[in-house]
Amino acid sequence: MDYYFSKTIRSSYDDAISLITEALRNEGFGIISVIQIHEKLKEKLNVDFKKYTILGACNPPFAYQALQAEDKIGTMLPCNVLVIEQAPGMIEIAAVNPIASMMAIPNPALGEVAQEVTNRLQRVIASL
Amino acid sequence: MDYYFSKTIRSSYDDAISLITEALRNEGFGIISVIQIHEKLKEKLNVDFKKYTILGACNPPFAYQALQAEDKIGTMLPCNVLVIEQAPGMIEIAAVNPIASMMAIPNPALGEVAQEVTNRLQRVIASL
Repeated sequence: MDYYFSKTIRSSYDDAISLITEALRNEGFGIISVIQIHEKLKEKLNVDFKKYTILGACNPPFAYQALQAEDKIGTMLPCNVLVIEQAPGMIEIAAVNPIASMMAIPNPALGEVAQEVTNRLQRVIASL
Repeated sequence: MDYYFSKTIRSSYDDAISLITEALRNEGFGIISVIQIHEKLKEKLNVDFKKYTILGACNPPFAYQALQAEDKIGTMLPCNVLVIEQAPGMIEIAAVNPIASMMAIPNPALGEVAQEVTNRLQRVIASL
């Protein structure tokens, strides 16, 4: 099972961030955290790394359902969506596959939510 | 396989946050994101939820190693550590088990880093 869904598009980096933000919004996801990995690696290790942003996407009704089904599911939240500059003007956007990351959690009630969130993230990536 | 390591301590909520922050620092982890789930659920759904914070913990050298071994590992980063008020003065602190969350990724080079990070997070929780 693939642990992420991805598409590479021709775009500026900033436009790709705007595009995925809007595509996520269309499926009910807001962005609740933003981590600029390249900036952290520069700051902490003084290494140059390609532009690599982790957007934390959250659909509040599904997050609430998941938390009620499985108290420690926050260890897997939010759903990460990566925006990676693979080459100048070539931006890969990759969303986690929640069913893959939650494989180790045997909880059928959680499974239903994970399936719905997975379907939505797949549609988000397909829409780009 | 447990997908998280946890301990419940008697503490105020704020003191628990300080305690786990310091314990993580002792194993080389900084906190690079903070999500107050209870505040988000109140704001978006107007529901009252126990205090539930997701701290995003990152050990920069290991994160860099993981990113070099597996480009899309950012879908599983940072390592989440939960601080949950289970009852007044009873705070559960739970760290993700990276080996469990990365089960779906068949990459031996990544496995070594995941094992080391897992050992450190287990020590962090044991030290509380």
